Amino acid sequence: MPYRSIIAGADSAQADVAAATSAATEAFAGFRATSPEARADFLDAVAAEIEAARAEIVEAAVAESHLPEGRISGEVGRTTGQLKMFAGVVRRGDHLGVRIDPALPERTPLPRADIRQRQIPLGPVAVFGASNFPLAFSTAGGDTVSALAAGCPVVVKGHPAHPLTGYLVAQAVTRAVEKAGLHAGTFSFLLDTDPAAGPQTGIELGQSLVTDPRIKAVGFTGSRGGGLAIAAAAAARPEPIPVYAEMSSINPVVILPGALATGDTDALATAYVGSLTLGSGQFCTNPGLLFLPRSEAGDAFLAAAGRATAEAVGATMLTEGIAQAYEAGTEKLRSTDGVSVVGQGTAGDTDAPAPQLVEAARLAGVTDEVFGASGVVVRYDSIDELLPSLDSLEGQLTATVHATDADNEAAAQVVSALELKAGRILFNGWPTGVEVGHAMVHGGPFPATSNSLTTSVGSLAIERFQRPVAYQDVPAAILPEAVRDDNPWHLARRIDGELQLP
Amino acid sequence: MPYRSIIAGADSAQADVAAATSAATEAFAGFRATSPEARADFLDAVAAEIEAARAEIVEAAVAESHLPEGRISGEVGRTTGQLKMFAGVVRRGDHLGVRIDPALPERTPLPRADIRQRQIPLGPVAVFGASNFPLAFSTAGGDTVSALAAGCPVVVKGHPAHPLTGYLVAQAVTRAVEKAGLHAGTFSFLLDTDPAAGPQTGIELGQSLVTDPRIKAVGFTGSRGGGLAIAAAAAARPEPIPVYAEMSSINPVVILPGALATGDTDALATAYVGSLTLGSGQFCTNPGLLFLPRSEAGDAFLAAAGRATAEAVGATMLTEGIAQAYEAGTEKLRSTDGVSVVGQGTAGDTDAPAPQLVEAARLAGVTDEVFGASGVVVRYDSIDELLPSLDSLEGQLTATVHATDADNEAAAQVVSALELKAGRILFNGWPTGVEVGHAMVHGGPFPATSNSLTTSVGSLAIERFQRPVAYQDVPAAILPEAVRDDNPWHLARRIDGELQLP
Repeated sequence: MPYRSIIAGADSAQADVAAATSAATEAFAGFRATSPEARADFLDAVAAEIEAARAEIVEAAVAESHLPEGRISGEVGRTTGQLKMFAGVVRRGDHLGVRIDPALPERTPLPRADIRQRQIPLGPVAVFGASNFPLAFSTAGGDTVSALAAGCPVVVKGHPAHPLTGYLVAQAVTRAVEKAGLHAGTFSFLLDTDPAAGPQTGIELGQSLVTDPRIKAVGFTGSRGGGLAIAAAAAARPEPIPVYAEMSSINPVVILPGALATGDTDALATAYVGSLTLGSGQFCTNPGLLFLPRSEAGDAFLAAAGRATAEAVGATMLTEGIAQAYEAGTEKLRSTDGVSVVGQGTAGDTDAPAPQLVEAARLAGVTDEVFGASGVVVRYDSIDELLPSLDSLEGQLTATVHATDADNEAAAQVVSALELKAGRILFNGWPTGVEVGHAMVHGGPFPATSNSLTTSVGSLAIERFQRPVAYQDVPAAILPEAVRDDNPWHLARRIDGELQLP
Repeated sequence: MPYRSIIAGADSAQADVAAATSAATEAFAGFRATSPEARADFLDAVAAEIEAARAEIVEAAVAESHLPEGRISGEVGRTTGQLKMFAGVVRRGDHLGVRIDPALPERTPLPRADIRQRQIPLGPVAVFGASNFPLAFSTAGGDTVSALAAGCPVVVKGHPAHPLTGYLVAQAVTRAVEKAGLHAGTFSFLLDTDPAAGPQTGIELGQSLVTDPRIKAVGFTGSRGGGLAIAAAAAARPEPIPVYAEMSSINPVVILPGALATGDTDALATAYVGSLTLGSGQFCTNPGLLFLPRSEAGDAFLAAAGRATAEAVGATMLTEGIAQAYEAGTEKLRSTDGVSVVGQGTAGDTDAPAPQLVEAARLAGVTDEVFGASGVVVRYDSIDELLPSLDSLEGQLTATVHATDADNEAAAQVVSALELKAGRILFNGWPTGVEVGHAMVHGGPFPATSNSLTTSVGSLAIERFQRPVAYQDVPAAILPEAVRDDNPWHLARRIDGELQLP
């Protein structure tokens, strides 16, 4: 067997949750005390170790995910870029959120004490990676790197769809832990090492990880059912813990009339189907629902989108289970009252089902996510008909608007409705690309995520794994570096409520 | 009947949840669109209206809470000061958390889109105030003001222990809403108007408020049982929502040897008992557990604390129910194996039970909160015996250390242990005062709160009621003011990851 669990730096035949979480707890004291520079260097080292193992990681990930080599190779770059971005965030130190309210000994009627606040890491974090991004949202993906950046040891539950990829990445992280001189428990990787026992073993492993009292937070990317099960288990613990689950989204697209009046309708429709079918539609940001004007131009768009879909060929999906769920979901859509097929592509093979585009007479019954290249078009006559439809949607990761300046009045109303529904609103593009940056939000109201107050992509994600602590009249000699008067880490600080740069 | 519910600005005989939340939803669109200046002016106006009604509010609150007039009068000032502080926070605008990653059209292999992030309010918020702070943690207290500051309409469930106080404050807020020209649904106040039906009616009212689909977050201050019930109801909704419950804390105090070696042990013990019995001990930050060196000086401290407790007289508690729970809790402590009474004061009357101080041979069985003037002392021989005890504690709002420079080595270890347990660590003082400022944390790990990532006192509390939204390539003409290039609100912004002051 070429891959196993890695617990506290050593290969293990058993996915021993208690051993991994105990090691993580032991590692926590030292890891949280690392200076920004040391912790950032460690993140850079993880990136370097992944880069050094790039060839074998890419080979494994292509074989396990059926995704094209170019896509996987790009995802390695995205993963290491993400690590380096968080290294930069840690070096800058703004995430420490330092606030100082100096003492006011002369204040009447009561003097004010000296109060200083910083953010500290929560403790060991459990990470459940995604099937569809075997690198960027998995073993050393966004959840792992933001938890490590915050100073939290991480225990990853390896994804059964890409065990070797996960193992190779975990080895790279483990090498970086060792070279940085960190406690080996800083990172562990648990793999269901008994494939004969079937997926149930993996679910049990996940449950025992989430309910282990040493785990203090969870990052998850996957299905709504999986995310809700983990959130329920975490809430039922004697000490409930936060779960950041990125789950389900159909990513509505609104085409406003102007976008059809001036542009090349065929090209717009083709670009839409391109986004819909990219990577077999296996993106959490896949545009599964499109609102289209009921007009001649709308008819032309729909016909062109139908033709483009008919020309599309299914590519092998990530797992058999995902392909079967896609077949069931698209079949259910086709048999829903008021739904007609606009275009259907060609299946590649049994694990590469055909892309599908349908038109639905009404929104009710067609808003469940079908993971894969499945699109639903709903027509509207006027902005007054459109807005209540947008208001009725569940929470989303993204919402897209196609419009020109002529649409500005309607577009402003649409944005106002959509910002209550989605974490990211984009214009005249497609949602399937998620930039890793400081302003990105990959989040949104339930059921897009289990916690709409944050993001799982971008530098804000670090805040999920920290909590504030106030230090009142703590002697200077034992104050943490972050809140000392001499500001040894050159941090931006909020003094008496006012931001001051270093 | 002199007081009733206030729904959308009008007196109502019924505590009609749907009417209040519908009005709040209608108010939300306009309220969230207010400029920082307009919203801040509104908060200042609430403070002014409360100040204008000070005399009748103080009279009602003293009568209903049995707390002394000086304390209540001070609490009015704290409440209005808190409103003004949040007005300042809103005017400054840092809570909008603006981040801009400018477009990089020339970037290879792919150009970067223009991405801008701001925080937006969650929507209508339900607030359950505390019994023990009828003003500062109630109708227009910390939860209400931070939600309003974020741009969320608020529906308060009036506390049955101070209905008239709540009604008078709600009238003041309502007058400010009206004068500011805001939608009347911006603030509503629901009171169980059928006292004959008993407390069950109030619990049902609370449940229907929390489970109303128009409510998007909850602020709560009260018992562990009450907070857990509300958190469970919120988690079971079709759309789960965040609950910020401040619940249970015994606020450990650690006396290190140096504090007994140099100071006046009698004075220290008297000050401790003063904090323990202040306001009948009815503070969430009441120091209910004290770790004391097993030494001669420790014996002297304990004897002095016992004498001070014996001299203390019980004052009437907030409600009969609270007094009964205190009697039951102190009785249970006395009958716990290994517990001996160190000092017992005098009862005032049946609703003013006697303060009590006990010594416990071990920590197990004595760490449940007894709301009121009940203290438990546990002795320790060495720092090596103390630290595991601290590690075994549940989450706390505060942790206090008494020490001198001679204790620095031990104190650093104690701080390192306590910061994982408490939201605020203070030295050589008492935890019962909670400063309203920018650096304050009134929060902490479960069960001190249901969400350790935030605070219910201080300006950081506003972040509980906001979520981030990213705008990608949104046309300048319809971008929200907060993220426009010309920065009309003069906000601090993070450009490409770097903080820039206005």
